[in-house]
Amino acid sequence: MRILVAGLGLIGGSLCKAIHAYTDHAVCGWNRTKAVAEKALAEHVIDEIAGDDCSGFDMIITSLYPELTRKWVRNHIGTMQKNTIVLDVTGVKTDLPKEMTELCSGYGVHYLSTHPMAGKERAGFDVSDENLFQGANFIMTPLPETPKSIIAQVQNFAHQVGFRKFVITTPEMHDRMIAYTSQLAHVVSSSYVQSPEIQFESGFSGGSFQDMTRIATMNEDMWADLFMENQESLSYELDILIQHLQEYQKALANKDREAVYALIRDGRLRKEQNLTNRRNSPSVIDLTKKESNS
Amino acid sequence: MRILVAGLGLIGGSLCKAIHAYTDHAVCGWNRTKAVAEKALAEHVIDEIAGDDCSGFDMIITSLYPELTRKWVRNHIGTMQKNTIVLDVTGVKTDLPKEMTELCSGYGVHYLSTHPMAGKERAGFDVSDENLFQGANFIMTPLPETPKSIIAQVQNFAHQVGFRKFVITTPEMHDRMIAYTSQLAHVVSSSYVQSPEIQFESGFSGGSFQDMTRIATMNEDMWADLFMENQESLSYELDILIQHLQEYQKALANKDREAVYALIRDGRLRKEQNLTNRRNSPSVIDLTKKESNS
Repeated sequence: MRILVAGLGLIGGSLCKAIHAYTDHAVCGWNRTKAVAEKALAEHVIDEIAGDDCSGFDMIITSLYPELTRKWVRNHIGTMQKNTIVLDVTGVKTDLPKEMTELCSGYGVHYLSTHPMAGKERAGFDVSDENLFQGANFIMTPLPETPKSIIAQVQNFAHQVGFRKFVITTPEMHDRMIAYTSQLAHVVSSSYVQSPEIQFESGFSGGSFQDMTRIATMNEDMWADLFMENQESLSYELDILIQHLQEYQKALANKDREAVYALIRDGRLRKEQNLTNRRNSPSVIDLTKKESNS
Repeated sequence: MRILVAGLGLIGGSLCKAIHAYTDHAVCGWNRTKAVAEKALAEHVIDEIAGDDCSGFDMIITSLYPELTRKWVRNHIGTMQKNTIVLDVTGVKTDLPKEMTELCSGYGVHYLSTHPMAGKERAGFDVSDENLFQGANFIMTPLPETPKSIIAQVQNFAHQVGFRKFVITTPEMHDRMIAYTSQLAHVVSSSYVQSPEIQFESGFSGGSFQDMTRIATMNEDMWADLFMENQESLSYELDILIQHLQEYQKALANKDREAVYALIRDGRLRKEQNLTNRRNSPSVIDLTKKESNS
């Protein structure tokens, strides 16, 4: 395939590197700040810098913030060949898949919204990594009309660059789940570093503190957008977490060892169930099927 | 040295393995459940199973729950030689260092309370590991009368088995800091797994969910004790965290992007400062000196 990656940040840059490392596809790069594309070319991360003409590509991956994705596809759709597959990798879906799929279908172009579940606590091309996706989860949120063959082609490509688990779900379910598995974790991490005790932390911590605070370095430009676009689901998860923390707060205030013991035990059992679920889960999970069956 | 390790769980077992792997010291093991000591002997993790006679040891490390530490030292102090160094590795200090130091000094035995900042999400001899302490932090909470030479000997031993950062502090400061760096992280992890969305988690998560929930498997017997013994400091930290989560809750409920942006940015700056502090912190931090100077 000839692939175009638009946006050479952490995800886009890592995709280009993984395409070169693990596939025979040719990869061209587009970036708003041209200097980054030039750097990627100089480092042989991409084969060519793409201009505004998007003809001649089999697959186009937009690796941009949601608002920029909308704009970029609108600005370039006129130059794309029929049957081109266009992907986005945005962290919140809302109505983007529907809007873009409808736009693209008018041009005979296939659109599929995806979410590669990989990242780092830092953003940008300089920290991109050909192995970022090894063993990671890959979520796809097709519309009911998206051809199965397009989903299969995209899944095959994702497998080539390292992903090993694939989820097919609705945009709504994606956003609800991401609020829990990713966004809430970022809110916790960001809040955890606010204790005054952090000034003496060095020397007093083991792995747990690092795990809890690693992603507090998230970039506010991107994450404020993601939180606001998914405000309802994130608020819902945050309320649940605070409720459970308040149960600990109450049990501790009452010096109620039995209650504390029960809370720890219940958490342990839930995490053990979660680990069992993970071990037993198949490599392809199609939640759209499940929903239509029920 | 001839060393006795009493209690062959994760920490005690790992200490025995690290002593064998990285030092020339002889190590004997004591365990309440004899089968574990026999297993450790059969696997050449210890050189001998110790009985109740504690003479002939240069260093005795109790690797037991706090209450058992108290009892074990009381039961065995009569058999120890003068100048033996006795350590504990309990996760909360309260008045244990004072009580034990006073008891031991009556027998000419040196006591030092320590906290190796290493662990796993699972307990027990079977998951013990000779490399558990590599590069980890080692906290010591001496009393004002503890001889400097004893602290130096213990620090030297800890360095041999892999620790690379050493903190000397008071039991009170230890307990306050541990509430933040370790116990609060366990409470968060335990609460995080309570969302109903966890049932669909597999496939939807990247590294953040794993980081947040890894230690939810903590064992309720030990951790309920640790939380209760440090209830005041843990409650204090939990209150602070909940307050900051509620700031996010409020900003999200108000759909106030500016406030969300400011919270993310502030968290990022604090974490960056924390990373800088960590890079610049010396390998030995003596907070008892600092306190007496101020």
